[in-house]
Amino acid sequence: MCKKSTPLEKLGEFGLIKHLTRDINYHQFSSIIGIGDDAAVLDFKSNKILVSTDLLIEGIHFNLAYTPLKHLGYKAVVMNISDIYAMNAKPTQITISIAVSNRFSLESIDEFYVGIKMACNYYKVDLIGGDTSTSTFGMIISMTAIGTAKDIVLRKGAKLNDLLVVSGDLGAAYLGLQILKREYEVFKINPNLQPELGGYEYIIQRQLKPEAPKKILSIFNTVNVKPTSMIDISDGLASDILHICDMNKLGCRIFEEKLPIDPQTLLACEEFKLNPSIAVLNGGEDYELLFSIELKDYEKIKFQYDFSVIGYMTSFVEGAKFITKGGELVSITAQGWVTN
Amino acid sequence: MCKKSTPLEKLGEFGLIKHLTRDINYHQFSSIIGIGDDAAVLDFKSNKILVSTDLLIEGIHFNLAYTPLKHLGYKAVVMNISDIYAMNAKPTQITISIAVSNRFSLESIDEFYVGIKMACNYYKVDLIGGDTSTSTFGMIISMTAIGTAKDIVLRKGAKLNDLLVVSGDLGAAYLGLQILKREYEVFKINPNLQPELGGYEYIIQRQLKPEAPKKILSIFNTVNVKPTSMIDISDGLASDILHICDMNKLGCRIFEEKLPIDPQTLLACEEFKLNPSIAVLNGGEDYELLFSIELKDYEKIKFQYDFSVIGYMTSFVEGAKFITKGGELVSITAQGWVTN
Repeated sequence: MCKKSTPLEKLGEFGLIKHLTRDINYHQFSSIIGIGDDAAVLDFKSNKILVSTDLLIEGIHFNLAYTPLKHLGYKAVVMNISDIYAMNAKPTQITISIAVSNRFSLESIDEFYVGIKMACNYYKVDLIGGDTSTSTFGMIISMTAIGTAKDIVLRKGAKLNDLLVVSGDLGAAYLGLQILKREYEVFKINPNLQPELGGYEYIIQRQLKPEAPKKILSIFNTVNVKPTSMIDISDGLASDILHICDMNKLGCRIFEEKLPIDPQTLLACEEFKLNPSIAVLNGGEDYELLFSIELKDYEKIKFQYDFSVIGYMTSFVEGAKFITKGGELVSITAQGWVTN
Repeated sequence: MCKKSTPLEKLGEFGLIKHLTRDINYHQFSSIIGIGDDAAVLDFKSNKILVSTDLLIEGIHFNLAYTPLKHLGYKAVVMNISDIYAMNAKPTQITISIAVSNRFSLESIDEFYVGIKMACNYYKVDLIGGDTSTSTFGMIISMTAIGTAKDIVLRKGAKLNDLLVVSGDLGAAYLGLQILKREYEVFKINPNLQPELGGYEYIIQRQLKPEAPKKILSIFNTVNVKPTSMIDISDGLASDILHICDMNKLGCRIFEEKLPIDPQTLLACEEFKLNPSIAVLNGGEDYELLFSIELKDYEKIKFQYDFSVIGYMTSFVEGAKFITKGGELVSITAQGWVTN
């Protein structure tokens, strides 16, 4: 029995928008008018507003051969709102624009939107706008997240000797991706083989359906700690710690032995003959937070959530350094992206 | 002598962002923090906020064979902020994300940003964020415009017998595009022939470097008229008038003889054997406004700007009708898009 497959041109642009947005619920008082006019209308009273935008391109940021569209929709929202959480703010609205080629059916786009709506419901974020278009090649997703905050934390603000803390564990999403890629290569050679994903459920979930650091802000609130600086760890710890150093004209020391790494990540690293620290430093897509706190606040956070103190801020001249388990001092360098 | 061409990978992602945003000026008090953190921070005090987003894809929305990148940057901003003006609001900030393949050099992206910055300076809109990426194919542009308003005008609000008014002239951008396409076809056959654009400067400009309806809002203010409904005419008059009818559960009558069409548009229509009214109804990309006003306000606006009363709202059962110069009554139908 084959799945139903409705060509998108049957609906046309406006029909598609109506179809995709027919069952959208709004959670936020600040969403006055959502989809359906030239622009959405928001009212934040006198609170400050946060805006962050992301672009995701098939073949660059995701591969639909091993990424279910529902997961992709969920992950897209998470990626976008993570930047708002990283400002110590609450995401409230999101716009999503998509362009797809004619290989996508209405049913496949519906799957993508099921994921988007699941994430919106879970994070209480309202989908207030977007654009739909055809593409000449593959799928393109563009998102803008909007949020609000009373007490913003910037990348700038870290002081000498502040502790560097990360939430959750790192490197898992990168290793999850390696597993998915490997199984996809096997599948290409023999499509009848079942993928071997057993034992790697956690790291695959971290890749396919990550979560944004929603709870962390309420913890800061509960224990009355305001980080002195904060950044989203989505480009890999190395790149993000360098942003913090750069912004604050400081150096840092990060201790390899303090890096929080899940056992599944370690196991996969062994299998792929990868150094776990490299996965943490350069892997990316962890959607955790890296923040600095004053030394005096350490006691308040040490038993909270799964925070890990991984190092501290040093002076600019000392540079950004990584101390290996063997006691070696290595300079941290960023991985940028390179055009293909 | 060949032009300088620096590959983008020489800078990397963060280097490129730094380079592109090195000379950005901010005009708005509401822009607290722009590019350089996880999110931009805005403060609109207690004013309402407008958000609108657009996606532009090479090969679908623009053709770089006859669109200079500087013009494309300018037009992208105009397209995006037009939606904010259409809410009777003032655009204040914009985010721009781009993805480009390796055929783009740093110099070509610089050209694109020159256009963006020109438009931002002219319209006093602040570029507060964005994302850069590689693409597998061509250029992708995604934009989100943010604005503020005290007295918003929606698509909903038109009443029976309200007059329908458009700003400027219509159909020009579509005919400008036909001229550019024709000259491109000639160029493909014989690259040594110079394009024949003489006499069509206005309509080509309407296609390549349109302007947003910036002045119109101040006119409404001056003459103390608040439209009962308003929409941006970017999808063609037919599609946009149907949105107004649909939203208000009303019909309309539009008079062919009242459509404002520039002489250059008419001349080009003759050359291409096109019906000018079809160009107006279905051409699109005019970035003018269609709005409804109460009958009593007619005297206030009739000598203002280049407003044209093109018809009026009727009851729902009368439908959306177009009255030709010959007195024939035709139903207005929308053109959607079709996946390719």
